[in-house]
Amino acid sequence: MDNWNIIFIVLTCVSFVYSALQPGNWGSCENGESIPTRTNTSLRVEALRAEMVKEKLGAYIVPSEDFHMSEFVSSYDERRFYISGFDGSMGTAVITATHAALWTRGKYFLQAETQLGCDWILMREREPGVPTIEEWLGEQLENQAVKKVGACPYFFGNDAWLDYEKSLEQHGLRLGQTVPDLIDKIWTDDRPAFPDTVINSYPLKYAGKSWQDKVQEVQEEMKKKNADVLIVTMLDETAWLFNMRATDIRGFVNDPFFYSLAIVRPSSVSLYIKNKEMKLTANPTDQESDQTIKDHLNTRADGSCRKNSNKMCVEVKEYNYVSFIMDLDALAGNATIKRIWLSYFCNYAVYTMIPQDKIYVDNTPVAMLKTQKNDVEVQGMTNSHIRDAAALAIFASKLEKGVKSGETWTEVSASNELTRLRSLQDLNRGDSFASISSSGSNAAIIHYFPTNTTDRRITANDIYLIDSGGQYLDGTTDVTRTFLWRDPTAFEKECYTRVLMGQINLAMAVWTKGLFGREIDAWARQPLFDVGLTFKHGTGHGIGHYLSVHEGPGRISNYHAKFDWDVPLAEHMFYSDEPGYYEDGKFGIRLENIVYVKKVETKYSMKGVTMLGMETVTLFPYETHLIDYSKMSGKQISWLNAYNAKTLEKVGKLLKDQDAMEAYEWVEKRTKKIETTSGSTTTIASNFIIYSLLLLYLIW
Amino acid sequence: MDNWNIIFIVLTCVSFVYSALQPGNWGSCENGESIPTRTNTSLRVEALRAEMVKEKLGAYIVPSEDFHMSEFVSSYDERRFYISGFDGSMGTAVITATHAALWTRGKYFLQAETQLGCDWILMREREPGVPTIEEWLGEQLENQAVKKVGACPYFFGNDAWLDYEKSLEQHGLRLGQTVPDLIDKIWTDDRPAFPDTVINSYPLKYAGKSWQDKVQEVQEEMKKKNADVLIVTMLDETAWLFNMRATDIRGFVNDPFFYSLAIVRPSSVSLYIKNKEMKLTANPTDQESDQTIKDHLNTRADGSCRKNSNKMCVEVKEYNYVSFIMDLDALAGNATIKRIWLSYFCNYAVYTMIPQDKIYVDNTPVAMLKTQKNDVEVQGMTNSHIRDAAALAIFASKLEKGVKSGETWTEVSASNELTRLRSLQDLNRGDSFASISSSGSNAAIIHYFPTNTTDRRITANDIYLIDSGGQYLDGTTDVTRTFLWRDPTAFEKECYTRVLMGQINLAMAVWTKGLFGREIDAWARQPLFDVGLTFKHGTGHGIGHYLSVHEGPGRISNYHAKFDWDVPLAEHMFYSDEPGYYEDGKFGIRLENIVYVKKVETKYSMKGVTMLGMETVTLFPYETHLIDYSKMSGKQISWLNAYNAKTLEKVGKLLKDQDAMEAYEWVEKRTKKIETTSGSTTTIASNFIIYSLLLLYLIW
Repeated sequence: MDNWNIIFIVLTCVSFVYSALQPGNWGSCENGESIPTRTNTSLRVEALRAEMVKEKLGAYIVPSEDFHMSEFVSSYDERRFYISGFDGSMGTAVITATHAALWTRGKYFLQAETQLGCDWILMREREPGVPTIEEWLGEQLENQAVKKVGACPYFFGNDAWLDYEKSLEQHGLRLGQTVPDLIDKIWTDDRPAFPDTVINSYPLKYAGKSWQDKVQEVQEEMKKKNADVLIVTMLDETAWLFNMRATDIRGFVNDPFFYSLAIVRPSSVSLYIKNKEMKLTANPTDQESDQTIKDHLNTRADGSCRKNSNKMCVEVKEYNYVSFIMDLDALAGNATIKRIWLSYFCNYAVYTMIPQDKIYVDNTPVAMLKTQKNDVEVQGMTNSHIRDAAALAIFASKLEKGVKSGETWTEVSASNELTRLRSLQDLNRGDSFASISSSGSNAAIIHYFPTNTTDRRITANDIYLIDSGGQYLDGTTDVTRTFLWRDPTAFEKECYTRVLMGQINLAMAVWTKGLFGREIDAWARQPLFDVGLTFKHGTGHGIGHYLSVHEGPGRISNYHAKFDWDVPLAEHMFYSDEPGYYEDGKFGIRLENIVYVKKVETKYSMKGVTMLGMETVTLFPYETHLIDYSKMSGKQISWLNAYNAKTLEKVGKLLKDQDAMEAYEWVEKRTKKIETTSGSTTTIASNFIIYSLLLLYLIW
Repeated sequence: MDNWNIIFIVLTCVSFVYSALQPGNWGSCENGESIPTRTNTSLRVEALRAEMVKEKLGAYIVPSEDFHMSEFVSSYDERRFYISGFDGSMGTAVITATHAALWTRGKYFLQAETQLGCDWILMREREPGVPTIEEWLGEQLENQAVKKVGACPYFFGNDAWLDYEKSLEQHGLRLGQTVPDLIDKIWTDDRPAFPDTVINSYPLKYAGKSWQDKVQEVQEEMKKKNADVLIVTMLDETAWLFNMRATDIRGFVNDPFFYSLAIVRPSSVSLYIKNKEMKLTANPTDQESDQTIKDHLNTRADGSCRKNSNKMCVEVKEYNYVSFIMDLDALAGNATIKRIWLSYFCNYAVYTMIPQDKIYVDNTPVAMLKTQKNDVEVQGMTNSHIRDAAALAIFASKLEKGVKSGETWTEVSASNELTRLRSLQDLNRGDSFASISSSGSNAAIIHYFPTNTTDRRITANDIYLIDSGGQYLDGTTDVTRTFLWRDPTAFEKECYTRVLMGQINLAMAVWTKGLFGREIDAWARQPLFDVGLTFKHGTGHGIGHYLSVHEGPGRISNYHAKFDWDVPLAEHMFYSDEPGYYEDGKFGIRLENIVYVKKVETKYSMKGVTMLGMETVTLFPYETHLIDYSKMSGKQISWLNAYNAKTLEKVGKLLKDQDAMEAYEWVEKRTKKIETTSGSTTTIASNFIIYSLLLLYLIW
């Protein structure tokens, strides 16, 4: 799945569900415009202004982020959506006593226009003449007595906050910390509940490493960097570190996380969870979990450590922003603590508690250990991708047959059927995100997610793209294939072929250990570049192991701006390999596999140099009639033949075991060996004719 | 030329010349070791310690850099070499009251061991147990009353200074600014003179744009960024901006620069040069310069502006660190000046004069305009490379004939002959750097430069690599070719072929505008990567136009760490394209061309997307018997055929004009068309045999 797809999906759906649940709350503009996508936020903005007056603020800034700087926030944390009605993934709302404005980027202009309340100004970022937030505030508050701008430091990254602070100062304004957040004060009645799902212990046979071993490794990494304290604020990090899973983030991504924070010290660990006594003692809700969290973490029911054994114990504390910040304050003031490790993704409130000379900023050792999967995790990812491919093959063969025979299939009905088929596979725990099921011109919209208002029939005439994935106890999947059930045009065929060639280029690439993803992305784009085409998204994102479908810190992308937290590609990191091509208003093609990085053997070797390559774990066939083999190199065709053989062997076997013979034949048909001698499938025949004629001429 | 080669060369030679001139000054160690490469620095260190006592310093740090953060400093600025005897390009000397230590990296360990005075400790950076400078100073000064460490802020970049400051503070020490530098105080008698060569105006017919137009464009860029002042401290920037050239940096690079600084304001320009009245009024020393600098810059003999016309004028001031810093202080204190533009390469003394809220750091508009050559510069680079190739062809054909017929040629004599042949070409102004002329195992040392002690005979049995370049009034060249006058082994042939394939991959690459050099470097390495090989240097560095052979800010390298000043590849930037392979102790292969970035036409196009590619301006043939064409793709061979045809057309014509028929035939022999049908030169024959047998079988 593309790096930004899910954000759009989550928010589009949240918006839709929200609107649907509150029919009387649809916005209406002065000119009489009344559309179901618009929210009337006037009362909310007025309530916020009343709070601003109490706090003596000239303006208030509402960003998209939550306390954990999550890529996908729960509906509880949708503060900017609540105040503005706009649910795009990027956007910042700014409210003064007289005006309300929302800044967002080009791709969201249309969406914002149809969602923002009528009393909002849409600020089209980077368009000529559009002021920055700071410039606009400078003008708005120029003749005002109140020069203070408020914002809650819980929901800003450190760099973002400091940038605002500096830039506002240049406009004569002062940024002040507002705690608690003013949206939290006014958003009470109609707010989704704070997510509070039961936490299940995650069995060792899937995790591959006990939380005790993980904590010990983290502590060893801390020792190497002389860190006395490690602060863990990201939700996938706590889920991985403690081998625990829940369903707090449910929506258009299903991230099996629980709201939590952690503090690791050289000889102790503290975990903060919401409603701790219930969570510690509740019976597991997952059939594979066989113990309560208190037993799993070796605590008493109140979260205090059991001292009755030599075993490691996690002290469990109640999750609460304020008490966590107070605990940080105590640590920061402790003279024996010299160095406190923060990730790039801690919020400003966390940063600001730690004195400058004690801060050490780097990817946490939790993130770094998590991203390089252990052998059990690698095997689990491999296995879950085979089961996932079986579900997808059953789906694809059924859909093809249905569409060709005139059945009515739509983007939404297809998506629902695929979810159902995945749920029948072993260890499935739902989709990893809502499927991007898109037909024809919809497939050209990289951020598309079908809703009842956009739903389109899937026909044999249109290219159909489905980007989907599953959560399994032993892994997370994310796969995209593109179909067309008629003869392609020459251009469609060339695009599909070049996207495939790019995907194969990356899959069979070999490089020296130490390179970053952005430094090898160009291999995947080269076949498209050669004819003047490209795709406006990254080639690959990291993926978790029964965790998030987007996992950092690495990424295979020269499309994104440079980021400080990037890390070189290393063994056992899993990434997507998903080049694409999108023809606006017509069609979209994307082919996505999951690959993992591994050491490879080469003809020669150099002292001190490790060569890395990829192993593709997604085993799913391609549409052979959309491939122009004559454009591919001999190496690419060899790779494809080996891939097809493995797909038939692994996925074919499972389909037979599941008695899914139609799907088996569907796969078998697409995985036949491509015969070629010198990079072109036509070479043998044409050469044979030429040489035969030549020889006959010579003989006679 | 590789990015670090020249540094080594300069310093090796300076060391050698210096030692040779002062035979009585060779160091001797306590164990009786006495070698010509070692300098006895005891008296110098004692003199420095006496100054440290006066300044109440517990330690003093001596870095490699000059005031301009130049890549190659003049012998006058070799402070760290003077105090330690070590002349490697990277190294920092630290002196306390009792100890003297030098930190350097792995590739310089051997060199440092044989050069450092016997009273020095060699600190092998990054080796286990080796302390950092700050850690070591923390220990050394732990029980000392004096906690102040001195250093001269003129010779540290801003980031380097701040890192030292912070880290020393963590070890209980304080970094203090010592002005003037203490080495400058003690290094008086035997110091090379401050470079003070005549400055020539650079004619418009070569520069392509008047300095007035350049200044105006710079002022326009300043306006876009709201900068009231631009500080220019890099020597290639002043040379380019004012269309002036001199020979202040002469040694193993011939950078046609003059010591200078500049301050640009929206309606005025100041230039600081040494000995200004002489320079302004001296007669030109270059035959193509036809006016004095005062006329060129429209000033009076004292550097004040002529007011007698509407023409732009440069105010010329005396070059002096202190007065320049005082001028910055005045600008910084001027309330009407809000924003001062500094480059990443300003020294700490410059940075620290500017208040934080007025600093704007970015590549200067001078650097950015300079790196994208104008049409006249592009044409000049193209033309000068043809003349340079003619000289190199005359050299290579003569050397081959000589070596094969048993003449005595050595690395040094070959290098000298090439310099002589270059000097005969039109507009030549010497070499751009001392040639890396290396035979056999010497060619495996990327930093190698031949001296009388290392000089090796060139034989038909050894691979010979020559990396060299010329300065021409219309351009700067840098080219590497590798020769072997016997049949290669299979491995040698495979290496040469894969290096060539990498070079061609980059030369024919197509990519979307916006990518950085580090994001396309992997294309050049892929043929080597595929068999487990690589090269430990960047693929390409920028190159100036009758300026430095290394020009920033861009670079084509995934080998170097990320740097803030990197810029995307853009039209009319010139880079080297120089993959290589080095087999330690045996041989080295490098093939280097100069290319420039240009827009390219492609089969399809996308709205808003610009496709870029390369044009190769170095036209020089390859050694055909070292190429295994069967490994190359059809596209690579097509590229090579076109390249060879162009080389024969352009360079061949010039050789004929110069009546250099032996060289012409040498080139002609190497540029014959490679016949192939399907990517392999052997395909036709082998297929014919196979199909013939098949047909005969069928017939009979």
